[in-house]
Amino acid sequence: MSSPKSLHGVNYAPPRSFKTVLKANLKETLFPDDPFYEFKNEKLSKRILKGIQYFVPICQWLPKYKFGLFMYDLLAGITIASLAIPQGISYAKLAELPPIIGLYSSFVPPLIYAIFGSSKHLAVGTVATCSLIIAEAVQHKVKPEDNMELYVGLFYTAALISGLLQTALGVLRLGFLVDFLSHSTITGFMGGTALIICLQQLKGMLGLKHFTSRTDVYHVLRAVIENRKERKKKPNLFWVSAISPILVVVVGCLFAYFFNAEKHGIAIVGKLNKGINPSSIHLINFSPEYLPAVVKAGIITAMIAIAEGIAIGRSFAIMDNEQIDGNKEMVAIGLMNIVGSLTSCYLSTGPFSKTAVNYNAGCKSQMSNVVMSLCMLLTLLFLAPLFGYTPLVALAAIIMSAMIGLMDYEKAVHLYKTDKFDFLICMVAFFGVAFISMDMGLILSVGLALIRALLYVARPPTCKLGTITNTAFRDIEQYPGSNETPGMLILKLGSPIYFPNSNYVRERILRWVRDEQSLENSQRNEIEYLLLDFGGVTSIDITGVETLKELRRCLAAKSIKIILINPRLGVMEKLIATKFIDLLGKESVFLTIEEAIENCSFSLNSSSQAKREDLEIA
Amino acid sequence: MSSPKSLHGVNYAPPRSFKTVLKANLKETLFPDDPFYEFKNEKLSKRILKGIQYFVPICQWLPKYKFGLFMYDLLAGITIASLAIPQGISYAKLAELPPIIGLYSSFVPPLIYAIFGSSKHLAVGTVATCSLIIAEAVQHKVKPEDNMELYVGLFYTAALISGLLQTALGVLRLGFLVDFLSHSTITGFMGGTALIICLQQLKGMLGLKHFTSRTDVYHVLRAVIENRKERKKKPNLFWVSAISPILVVVVGCLFAYFFNAEKHGIAIVGKLNKGINPSSIHLINFSPEYLPAVVKAGIITAMIAIAEGIAIGRSFAIMDNEQIDGNKEMVAIGLMNIVGSLTSCYLSTGPFSKTAVNYNAGCKSQMSNVVMSLCMLLTLLFLAPLFGYTPLVALAAIIMSAMIGLMDYEKAVHLYKTDKFDFLICMVAFFGVAFISMDMGLILSVGLALIRALLYVARPPTCKLGTITNTAFRDIEQYPGSNETPGMLILKLGSPIYFPNSNYVRERILRWVRDEQSLENSQRNEIEYLLLDFGGVTSIDITGVETLKELRRCLAAKSIKIILINPRLGVMEKLIATKFIDLLGKESVFLTIEEAIENCSFSLNSSSQAKREDLEIA
Repeated sequence: MSSPKSLHGVNYAPPRSFKTVLKANLKETLFPDDPFYEFKNEKLSKRILKGIQYFVPICQWLPKYKFGLFMYDLLAGITIASLAIPQGISYAKLAELPPIIGLYSSFVPPLIYAIFGSSKHLAVGTVATCSLIIAEAVQHKVKPEDNMELYVGLFYTAALISGLLQTALGVLRLGFLVDFLSHSTITGFMGGTALIICLQQLKGMLGLKHFTSRTDVYHVLRAVIENRKERKKKPNLFWVSAISPILVVVVGCLFAYFFNAEKHGIAIVGKLNKGINPSSIHLINFSPEYLPAVVKAGIITAMIAIAEGIAIGRSFAIMDNEQIDGNKEMVAIGLMNIVGSLTSCYLSTGPFSKTAVNYNAGCKSQMSNVVMSLCMLLTLLFLAPLFGYTPLVALAAIIMSAMIGLMDYEKAVHLYKTDKFDFLICMVAFFGVAFISMDMGLILSVGLALIRALLYVARPPTCKLGTITNTAFRDIEQYPGSNETPGMLILKLGSPIYFPNSNYVRERILRWVRDEQSLENSQRNEIEYLLLDFGGVTSIDITGVETLKELRRCLAAKSIKIILINPRLGVMEKLIATKFIDLLGKESVFLTIEEAIENCSFSLNSSSQAKREDLEIA
Repeated sequence: MSSPKSLHGVNYAPPRSFKTVLKANLKETLFPDDPFYEFKNEKLSKRILKGIQYFVPICQWLPKYKFGLFMYDLLAGITIASLAIPQGISYAKLAELPPIIGLYSSFVPPLIYAIFGSSKHLAVGTVATCSLIIAEAVQHKVKPEDNMELYVGLFYTAALISGLLQTALGVLRLGFLVDFLSHSTITGFMGGTALIICLQQLKGMLGLKHFTSRTDVYHVLRAVIENRKERKKKPNLFWVSAISPILVVVVGCLFAYFFNAEKHGIAIVGKLNKGINPSSIHLINFSPEYLPAVVKAGIITAMIAIAEGIAIGRSFAIMDNEQIDGNKEMVAIGLMNIVGSLTSCYLSTGPFSKTAVNYNAGCKSQMSNVVMSLCMLLTLLFLAPLFGYTPLVALAAIIMSAMIGLMDYEKAVHLYKTDKFDFLICMVAFFGVAFISMDMGLILSVGLALIRALLYVARPPTCKLGTITNTAFRDIEQYPGSNETPGMLILKLGSPIYFPNSNYVRERILRWVRDEQSLENSQRNEIEYLLLDFGGVTSIDITGVETLKELRRCLAAKSIKIILINPRLGVMEKLIATKFIDLLGKESVFLTIEEAIENCSFSLNSSSQAKREDLEIA
């Protein structure tokens, strides 16, 4: 009997050139979605047109825009504008900014987003979380009551830094960095933030000594909360929750105006001037005294803002079976913050609540943001002073009602049930934010998630394979019925073998071998061949190859031969370049497990036959 | 024809309990080498004995120790002691410590290591790199000329912190953290450190205005360097290099003594007092003013020291086909530093040069460290004052000769040839250390290596599979001859699918589908089934499952069905727990690709037949 011949040889092609590999890797890393695929096989003029349409989406959707769609966008735009006014004032108040800045921030950024943004549903606005983070950072340096101009200037500077960072990340196509803010982290972080904001607001509300109609406010608050809960069950009730904030504000204003509430000790927002956004270039402040705090706030809020904006734009796009290019979105959000920071707006993004309202109100395109922006323009030009009568408690109620929606305890329960580690990451963010500080909570949670990600890298699973059919080999723990092959141990390795895990991989393989040899007599398997299924090994580095060499030396001392099965393209190239294949011999590399088994059994048989013959001769 | 029946069903066993999974994961993470396997099936008394032997290796090797071995260890011990004296003085001088501390540091730690250490070859001593790092950190707070007692105390404190950290990491079995200091980082870091130390020494040497016999020293230096180079080519010449440092010192001392060198402007070490290590407990200083700098130096040097000590112990053990438990070694090194810091020793580890000399001198066990320690005891008691005459230039020559050996340019060339990214990591460490600072160079390099590790996580490779034989399916890029199956696209995924990469995985799969559908007419493949080979997917988290759900929705809109093949144990459990399997239907999960293809072809045929029949009826 001759050694069985393999049908298809193992591919030992010489390694691809460094340039080819680099190009392929860069493409996978930075352009996984191949954004320019539409440009292939096109004429230059068409390419330029498509290029402009690619970078400035409004050139794509506006020419095709129909009046029929506008009616929908008009309705949606007015709805989100009615939300933008009370939320803008509330969050500005939360950040201890002049309330008018909240209104400014809903005028310019939506216009910019409508030009560069590619999500049809995203509604632009400020968010409570980021408002609070920037306030926390800036107040370490200057109190608003001491120098309001400086205080506001630092907010604009932080927004500018965020915008620049977001744009840079998008242009460099590093959007995947945002993925490291996992759902679990964000769930916990939002919950924790919502909790502290609520407690803060409650404290403020309970601190109002001369507040005559406190129970009323509680009723309003409860009504708002219940509306929200109701909405979750019955989406059709969303109109109630969509317009309730503006109703609360309008009712509050009327109440304050006619009953002269200020004299009864009910604090109101105060004077709001008419007029659109003034330029704020002169307020941008890069002086070294404030820069570290502002840069830190800018970076953290930039990441949170794009994580929220992109995740939300993407979720709604998926509902309509569309795709959003995260890096392009990042550029759009970045540009709107850069322009915003120069026109008296602080950090804005696409908050979940507003976007959901926009979607439910039936928006069809980025036009709804334009409508909202125009509504804000009218408000700034004519109505702003009226909103000065808004009682602060009404704002507190609006903030709290928005915050309660952010505490997603159902998600936390789901995490607990399905993945304890994800739940832990979520809880670290929640309690970190609630008991330490917002940035520490976030950093701890991301750190824990990174440790988990690195643990996967440091501890790649290996498993012992057994024979299910002649050609199928599966994990013996998962499929206990599968058979072992005498004289051989088949192991499946997973994920890359490289510096963070190569010691582990060696130890683990040696333990598999030891376990196999230390079984009791009858089950004991005298291994002569160790078959390593490399199909799952996606790459290997120098340290990994060194480890294989060490492993080979250790096993050679025990008269065990290593057989490699199906090394993948990149791995094979590295094994050839480092001469490991030469060391091992090409006869020890196979394309499939069954070929390897056939070959090894053949030599096992011939060697045992040879031993018998030796004995006979002796 | 009925749908083919699978021989082995897919395993849908209900998820294992949280406790079982946690226990299995903890074991894989912390005890991959199963260190207690010898304890199984043993009586209690034997277990206790083995336990003591496990934790205190001297109990294991000393009872079996034979006089025959001692002769070897005696020779090796004397050899390394002859190296320890000049190196100890030199590195203490490098750190601007009183030179006697260098001798102290070679007395106590080797004794402790001999008790707890498990490497037979490791020779304990101080290292230039760590001496310089601690000096750099401590000198930010206090200059040796201002307050030598405080300066020395901070060195002991840093050693104590290092020792505690090393012990803790070992006890908690977190030794794998050290693996993140990759070979490439260490190569570059050592090279960079060696370069700056050499430049420093050269500057010192050239600054000696009244130095009469400068050329002589250059000759000595060149001779030493050439010896070293010679040794690399001819290992038998190692004796020359092993004893040359002490020869240089002795000749230098004699020269200085008889020619009254000090009067001719040749600086010498100065007075060295007789006597063994005094206690240094009272010098340990945790005052908050110095603590941050000391803690930072302690952490960095602890990591470098164990990375060097363990890597070296392991390499020599592998030459003799033995295994070293990294976590146990860490405890041994930690304990020797804790005890050392209380007895006037600063940070020590197992330096490469000394260990290599120990190995080449024929050491057989940890006894060689005991011999070295006893030699140092004699030196401290009787000979110390003599070494006070050592000219500083001789020390500079010794340091430089040791440093030149650390600049491993051959390794760097090897890295360049085989892995450009590893080369980059190495160069960042080298130039970072040379041009910025030691800790920044290290941090940048480790950071870059981590980014690479995370990129592997963030960009797991996927590939399209083609049919090679009926049962073998391989990457179509690697094996271009393989055949595609009409109506189907088979993709192999690798590594975990979880938060850092789930967006990428979705985008990439959608791009595979799009690429397939956008081919020119004849090659165009109208996909109805997307077969995902999950064999390489080692785990999945909530975000990953959400991604699969989104993918399913996107593909459903294109009338493409997802088929899962061979999900592994942990992945299957998560898919069951999150109800993804229910959503997909058990009929869409198969154990092997061929079964899946058979099933899908069957339904493809029947559906196309149905279409034909529809046409006929019409």
